[in-house]
Amino acid sequence: MEKVLTAENINPRVHNMVYAVRGEVPLTAGKIAAKLANGDKSYPFDEILYCNIGNPQSVGQKPITYYRQVMAALDCPTVLDSNVLPPDVVVRARSLGSSIVGGTGAYTHSQGLISVRKEVARFCEQRDGHPCDPETLFLTNGASNAIAYLMTTMLGKPNHAVMIPKPQYPIYTALLSQLGAQPVFYELDEEAGWTVSATELKRAYAQASQEGLEIRAMVVINPGNPTGQCLDVPAMQTLARFCKEQRLVLMADEVYQENVYTDTKSFTSFKKVVRDLGSDFDGFELASFHSTSKGLIGECGRRGGYMELCGFDHDVFADIYKLASSNLCSNLDGQIMTALMVSPPHPGDASYPLFDQETRGIFESLKRKATKLVEGLKSIEGVSCQQAEGAMYVFPQISLSPAACQAAEDAGKSPDTFYCLSLLENTGICCVPGSGFGQKTGSWHLRATFLPPEEKMDDMITRFTKHHNDFSARYATAKSKL
Amino acid sequence: MEKVLTAENINPRVHNMVYAVRGEVPLTAGKIAAKLANGDKSYPFDEILYCNIGNPQSVGQKPITYYRQVMAALDCPTVLDSNVLPPDVVVRARSLGSSIVGGTGAYTHSQGLISVRKEVARFCEQRDGHPCDPETLFLTNGASNAIAYLMTTMLGKPNHAVMIPKPQYPIYTALLSQLGAQPVFYELDEEAGWTVSATELKRAYAQASQEGLEIRAMVVINPGNPTGQCLDVPAMQTLARFCKEQRLVLMADEVYQENVYTDTKSFTSFKKVVRDLGSDFDGFELASFHSTSKGLIGECGRRGGYMELCGFDHDVFADIYKLASSNLCSNLDGQIMTALMVSPPHPGDASYPLFDQETRGIFESLKRKATKLVEGLKSIEGVSCQQAEGAMYVFPQISLSPAACQAAEDAGKSPDTFYCLSLLENTGICCVPGSGFGQKTGSWHLRATFLPPEEKMDDMITRFTKHHNDFSARYATAKSKL
Repeated sequence: MEKVLTAENINPRVHNMVYAVRGEVPLTAGKIAAKLANGDKSYPFDEILYCNIGNPQSVGQKPITYYRQVMAALDCPTVLDSNVLPPDVVVRARSLGSSIVGGTGAYTHSQGLISVRKEVARFCEQRDGHPCDPETLFLTNGASNAIAYLMTTMLGKPNHAVMIPKPQYPIYTALLSQLGAQPVFYELDEEAGWTVSATELKRAYAQASQEGLEIRAMVVINPGNPTGQCLDVPAMQTLARFCKEQRLVLMADEVYQENVYTDTKSFTSFKKVVRDLGSDFDGFELASFHSTSKGLIGECGRRGGYMELCGFDHDVFADIYKLASSNLCSNLDGQIMTALMVSPPHPGDASYPLFDQETRGIFESLKRKATKLVEGLKSIEGVSCQQAEGAMYVFPQISLSPAACQAAEDAGKSPDTFYCLSLLENTGICCVPGSGFGQKTGSWHLRATFLPPEEKMDDMITRFTKHHNDFSARYATAKSKL
Repeated sequence: MEKVLTAENINPRVHNMVYAVRGEVPLTAGKIAAKLANGDKSYPFDEILYCNIGNPQSVGQKPITYYRQVMAALDCPTVLDSNVLPPDVVVRARSLGSSIVGGTGAYTHSQGLISVRKEVARFCEQRDGHPCDPETLFLTNGASNAIAYLMTTMLGKPNHAVMIPKPQYPIYTALLSQLGAQPVFYELDEEAGWTVSATELKRAYAQASQEGLEIRAMVVINPGNPTGQCLDVPAMQTLARFCKEQRLVLMADEVYQENVYTDTKSFTSFKKVVRDLGSDFDGFELASFHSTSKGLIGECGRRGGYMELCGFDHDVFADIYKLASSNLCSNLDGQIMTALMVSPPHPGDASYPLFDQETRGIFESLKRKATKLVEGLKSIEGVSCQQAEGAMYVFPQISLSPAACQAAEDAGKSPDTFYCLSLLENTGICCVPGSGFGQKTGSWHLRATFLPPEEKMDDMITRFTKHHNDFSARYATAKSKL
């Protein structure tokens, strides 16, 4: 029977979409993992080391006890009424529970529970020193869901475009492709620590305008993904002013706000920067995104997150609401986890000592692993790597010889994909090729998380180094950066 | 500051989208509820009776103990290791837990946990008597999420269209609007119990083809929403044959498969019907949807559900996978609840007696309430109502006089919206106007759930009756169906 739906006749915007985080290399890793599980001994490793995705608990990070206890107590009356949980957990669960009509099994308001939105608003106010209205918040199935609502609402024409950093997290290009709109890349300066300059913003904007694109928004990922840089306030002011001058919505992807590892830098939200700029920025359209998947909480499986919309037109807001309402609401455990993330236990609470120990342990470990992986990569000839100031990733640059690039071409792969597949098949280390995020023409990168367990880090670096040297020797012709 | 985004310049496909289940009437109800909570005594009622949405636990249905216990045990090691749960719950949680790499806090495979998909496959096999491959299943954030993946993938041109029943559940028209594609309505025959005829299918198809539309799929909602009818096998065979002849994907919305209340009818899946039709239907493209939000489980807040894709082209399947993977995965509690829904406790398990008592109680109560509400509505002069064979709704037809229609027009509302707002403001009963679902031109309906607590049903019917009589008297001119 001839198929009704074929690759040729379905939505080309979906067919042509690319999403590398779960693309060819991770798919190959999954197949190898299945072989290993079936007793295949032909690989020189016995497990896949998944460094392709910021999924901390999948590689050994333990859930934070307090969060799970409150969630379980809310979901299950048997647990709440038992005596197995600390008293502050029970108080917190009863308090949250009393605000939820029908409990966690009921659909909520399409923006999410008002009680949780009030907690998020208090968190933002304490963080920023500026008011936050719970009515401007949407609780969503992770940040991706929120980004999709906003981009779907704002982008309606083939020449609609959004400025996004290069490299970027590929949800942005994936959504632009899906919506039939265009990316306008502004390049981050790798040698200067993945910074952005006003000159580059202007260049990108001018070129796109000349091509007839109508740029509606600019995405800033801070701390950067995959690049890890943490912006300082002057740089953020430059970005905000640029958006104001060019009449762009500023989309602030701030899901790594808790993941800053340098002692000399700290996270500042765009909300604070914009509000601190004063009344000139009244009514400025700013969207910011946060998630329960990153930070120290790492609750990816919850699919929790929120979006704050500042300065949006009433009718536009109503349309975003309508889009959210057609999905009814985000899942309740994600909503609950969002409340707990923004309002953890306090000193003096029964749960605080364990909570403090667990979160501090995760943070210090991430910090050590970030440093170790960057240093390890930098010590390899033909690999350079910027400091991982924040987030969960390194994005090293890999020198590939013309012979390696030719071999990749012969295999029908991009050189970085070819390299990552070789790395995977020889070491079990699963990374994502830089081309999935965007990279300067002629340079090759990969993204690796520094999430694997600390005790595996040294071995991982040793294996990576050996592979790189073997690969370089194998394809040793005129060895230069292409 | 002039806004960057305005209703005039955003995506018209979102701006023009309609989603009535959470539209004007429920929004007004929310405002009245806020006033009541603030002590407003000006209304002749002291609470809103939400009948606008199939959200059982929000109106008093209790969660089923076993499901919540297993979920809490999986989410929280403290609970699993305590002695507060029945032994079969602990066994089930440990068994499910051992199949989840990183536990419920980690992203899973983009199609969902393979262990859960295997349980769903076994459920489908036992239900249908035909094989089900776990690799054809996607676990999703409710059925809406699955429907969106499929429709986004298949619809790429402005003349792409999908046949949908009229009346329908508005996620279909909302998604078609969002995707810039077209609905082709086939009308259900109200007087014949909301049935569909081959003649009507052909009429709708021919007319749409003549208009240049390329119809790609047909949606069947069984049991019907908002209409409650339960299809018999010959009718389903007619629908399947029509799809095969006209080369349409059959989208079977089967989320109410457990909600059939008549003794003379039972649910049959389209998978079974199609497979029973034999080898002529090999390779037939069928998508079916299920959800944890309905049935007797009613876990709307979990946003759990699944989609089975039979006969899809490999490349098309890969594109649907890619779309799902750009959202990483569905939430874990939804995935877990899906596993539990398809594999509940068995006779002999420690939890079985309570489980049986709870589910039986919910079913019998729904059945009694369905009958009571239909009978109550039928007894009102000027209201007719078909039997609610299944689902959670009645969809009565309301006679509105020319004077009522004129008053509605003067208020800038459709007559059924005008009626539902009057019903809300005078009784606190919140329903959805029939125009939100589609209705035969010149007829007026509303959708009401029969989910409110049994002890409130008599009073609800009394209030509804009084309002209808008052409304009819107020707008009494030539009283005839318009």
